Amino acid sequence: MKTGEIANLLGGKLTGDSEVEIDLVAAFDNAAPREITFLEKKVDHGQTRASCVLVGEDFDGQLPCLIRLKNPKLAFAKIAAVLQPPKKNIAGVHPTAVLAKDAFLEKDVFIGAFVCIGENTQIGDRTQIRAGAKIGDSVRVGMDCVIHANVSIEDGATIGNGVILHPGVVIGADGFGYVRDGAAGYVKFPQIGAITIEDDVEIGANTCIDRGALGETRIGEGTKIDNMVQIAHNVQIGKRVIIASQTGISGSTVIEDDCVIGGQVGFGDHARVLSGAIIGSQAGILPGKIVRPGVWWGTPVQPLDEYKRQNAHLKGIARLKDEVKALRQEITALKEPGK
Amino acid sequence: MKTGEIANLLGGKLTGDSEVEIDLVAAFDNAAPREITFLEKKVDHGQTRASCVLVGEDFDGQLPCLIRLKNPKLAFAKIAAVLQPPKKNIAGVHPTAVLAKDAFLEKDVFIGAFVCIGENTQIGDRTQIRAGAKIGDSVRVGMDCVIHANVSIEDGATIGNGVILHPGVVIGADGFGYVRDGAAGYVKFPQIGAITIEDDVEIGANTCIDRGALGETRIGEGTKIDNMVQIAHNVQIGKRVIIASQTGISGSTVIEDDCVIGGQVGFGDHARVLSGAIIGSQAGILPGKIVRPGVWWGTPVQPLDEYKRQNAHLKGIARLKDEVKALRQEITALKEPGK
Amino acid sequence: MKTGEIANLLGGKLTGDSEVEIDLVAAFDNAAPREITFLEKKVDHGQTRASCVLVGEDFDGQLPCLIRLKNPKLAFAKIAAVLQPPKKNIAGVHPTAVLAKDAFLEKDVFIGAFVCIGENTQIGDRTQIRAGAKIGDSVRVGMDCVIHANVSIEDGATIGNGVILHPGVVIGADGFGYVRDGAAGYVKFPQIGAITIEDDVEIGANTCIDRGALGETRIGEGTKIDNMVQIAHNVQIGKRVIIASQTGISGSTVIEDDCVIGGQVGFGDHARVLSGAIIGSQAGILPGKIVRPGVWWGTPVQPLDEYKRQNAHLKGIARLKDEVKALRQEITALKEPGK
Repeated sequence: MKTGEIANLLGGKLTGDSEVEIDLVAAFDNAAPREITFLEKKVDHGQTRASCVLVGEDFDGQLPCLIRLKNPKLAFAKIAAVLQPPKKNIAGVHPTAVLAKDAFLEKDVFIGAFVCIGENTQIGDRTQIRAGAKIGDSVRVGMDCVIHANVSIEDGATIGNGVILHPGVVIGADGFGYVRDGAAGYVKFPQIGAITIEDDVEIGANTCIDRGALGETRIGEGTKIDNMVQIAHNVQIGKRVIIASQTGISGSTVIEDDCVIGGQVGFGDHARVLSGAIIGSQAGILPGKIVRPGVWWGTPVQPLDEYKRQNAHLKGIARLKDEVKALRQEITALKEPGK
Repeated sequence: MKTGEIANLLGGKLTGDSEVEIDLVAAFDNAAPREITFLEKKVDHGQTRASCVLVGEDFDGQLPCLIRLKNPKLAFAKIAAVLQPPKKNIAGVHPTAVLAKDAFLEKDVFIGAFVCIGENTQIGDRTQIRAGAKIGDSVRVGMDCVIHANVSIEDGATIGNGVILHPGVVIGADGFGYVRDGAAGYVKFPQIGAITIEDDVEIGANTCIDRGALGETRIGEGTKIDNMVQIAHNVQIGKRVIIASQTGISGSTVIEDDCVIGGQVGFGDHARVLSGAIIGSQAGILPGKIVRPGVWWGTPVQPLDEYKRQNAHLKGIARLKDEVKALRQEITALKEPGK
Repeated sequence: MKTGEIANLLGGKLTGDSEVEIDLVAAFDNAAPREITFLEKKVDHGQTRASCVLVGEDFDGQLPCLIRLKNPKLAFAKIAAVLQPPKKNIAGVHPTAVLAKDAFLEKDVFIGAFVCIGENTQIGDRTQIRAGAKIGDSVRVGMDCVIHANVSIEDGATIGNGVILHPGVVIGADGFGYVRDGAAGYVKFPQIGAITIEDDVEIGANTCIDRGALGETRIGEGTKIDNMVQIAHNVQIGKRVIIASQTGISGSTVIEDDCVIGGQVGFGDHARVLSGAIIGSQAGILPGKIVRPGVWWGTPVQPLDEYKRQNAHLKGIARLKDEVKALRQEITALKEPGK
């Protein structure tokens, strides 16, 4: 692809040769000729061998070939998807795969080795199902999905279009619910609800999303979930939510649209995070808590400002102790002036 | 099943038509006709289309058809297991499964596609082993178990009756133990011990339970473990213990019968939790700590009352600082009355 | 193996019969005749039926057959590897395995049932790949590795010699990186970098190590990683690092050689842990933080001494409050002596 074409595609303003061939994307420091890179800073402090650099509109430095645009990192992500699209296996069903008789594959589906597809399950156009994925009965997988190796999708799950499930993901396992029956121990509460993953969701390796107990677990459109995240029964995640690795969300908690959740955060059950909230890593949210928009931190979670103030107070306790000790001495002196 | 039969089975007192047919269970708000639901509250504040409602003995509201009993939620769980039992594949061995010559299947076992069963391994009556599960050598799996897709059970593990392992569970991998050999780095300490899962244990997706180093790792009867829990070598978990998601238990720690452990809790090694203790989510238990019965919270873990008191004190530091400042001014005034 | 041979092999000094046959290793308390065990304490306070005991050079107790050496636990680990080496399947390719035409197996490789090996992938001498492991295209696995059941290795990964990957490990999945495109949501940042696991690394069950975004993720020689650890894109882990279970390391963070990291620790992105640091369990390291050698604890992480002091201060707040209250009364008395 030529630099001129790239500038057109991205809607940027090219300075330099429009006929340079670009094959690959690369980081600024490691790029080679015939590669394109990007720079977020106004001035470059390094050197690059890249043949073309995407920069901001206010870029102030000197580079032989550059394209100015509003958001160079976003533009870089977009051109990377064109120049180096994710691997697509050629459509077809591997001879080792086991498909139920009434499983229905739409057009141009790829089914890898040792894949199982259950009864009454439907796989949408151009979806890729990699080796060893196990898809249960009555599952619906949309178009243009990539289901990676060793994923498990349990019966009745609904997966939208453009969904990516990384290796080891488990969708629709039973939630964790029991009723105590005295000395006899625990009786399993029914875990027979639905699980819906909307369009353009990406889910990281070994993440688990349980089905609803009686109701539904739902992950909203465009939401991105990192590795080893736990999402319990009946959780509702909105659209365009970001959830970093190892976070756990207890039953029936709601996270509304456009929230950003750090790593290793723990949510109690029946909490609600209002649209636009940002929650820092390792925070703990108590059951039933409502988290308003803004930046939150700590356990139990509090607004970042309060958290910082409290932390500063904590650091000041030693000084406070010394001061109280000094006051004690002065009062003693006042009371017993002769001493 | 008719409402009269259900009332008999559950030992409840029916008010209303005993001949209504019930097919399914459902949540109170979403139930449809021919479905049964339950209500834990004394009065209902909503409406249900369910044909029958399980309620407490002291229920005070108006419903066309209800069954009074001591614990309506428990009764609901029990009738759900009758009306909507978990899927059972028809017994048989899928032609793609690979069984060692001396693997021994008892009666009515189901073995799914791409399952491996190792040498000298025995699978009990009516146990279901779903697609892609890998079971090593000299493993003993009891009766009426469900081993879901892509589970791994390593050599020599012992699994009781009625055990459920959800997708991606790993039983009996090596524990994490090494001896430092100076500059040469770490030498693996032997991880050759036993791993025993007793009857009626349920283990959530992608949870890992390591084998003993030299001794045994054991999970007691009726214990329920959520997704992505880590249980290290030589841990002993008692009977009827509840462990929520993403909790980690270090080597040789003991959790006695009837404890309840929240999510994301971390246990140091060689700790001991006495029977009946309840530990809140995200708590941290130091190595060797003994946790007595009661409710515990925080890191390092402390009784919930103390935790709350300390948290209140923390919130009060700012006020304390102001008070000390005021005292300082008053003392200064006392010392220099002329000023 | 005879006790005399063992003493020679380990470089220890035997006291007792050099002709006793030893078959197995065992713990001190549970050992049987024909077994060898070890004791770290100077005097034994228990009884053992072991035929031989490895003890320290300053051992002071009475045992019928013992071998004195510098580090009895290390010696025990070494002799265990000789007496009870890990299982080795006989070399060969299981007929159900699916190998790409140009996959290249070196000498004495074992490939289990339902294994996939992609195009242009190379497996080194004596490496064992267990049932259900999925290895992508252009992967290089070194010699003497053990890849356990249901492991997923994505395209282009490089795995050194003597590496052990436990069941469910995911190597080289996409990292978690997106660029926000206003109301349209998130665009995937390219995750096309490299992933390198150096020699003698051991990785616990269900751990995930993502590939670099544009650069490389690297795990250094002799590093040992426990179960369910998350390692994000572009992380650099040095040599001989220990990382306990459920720890999460965000993008581009560097952990230098010979560090020890506890369980459930969370690292923000772009942090750096200098060689020799020890970080306690559940600690939280802020993005960009530099952690110097020494012992660290808490969130945000601080030197253990400071953490302890601060914790003691915290415990003292109640007393401080009482003292301030008393001062207030005394000052009031001083100001109004008549009252």
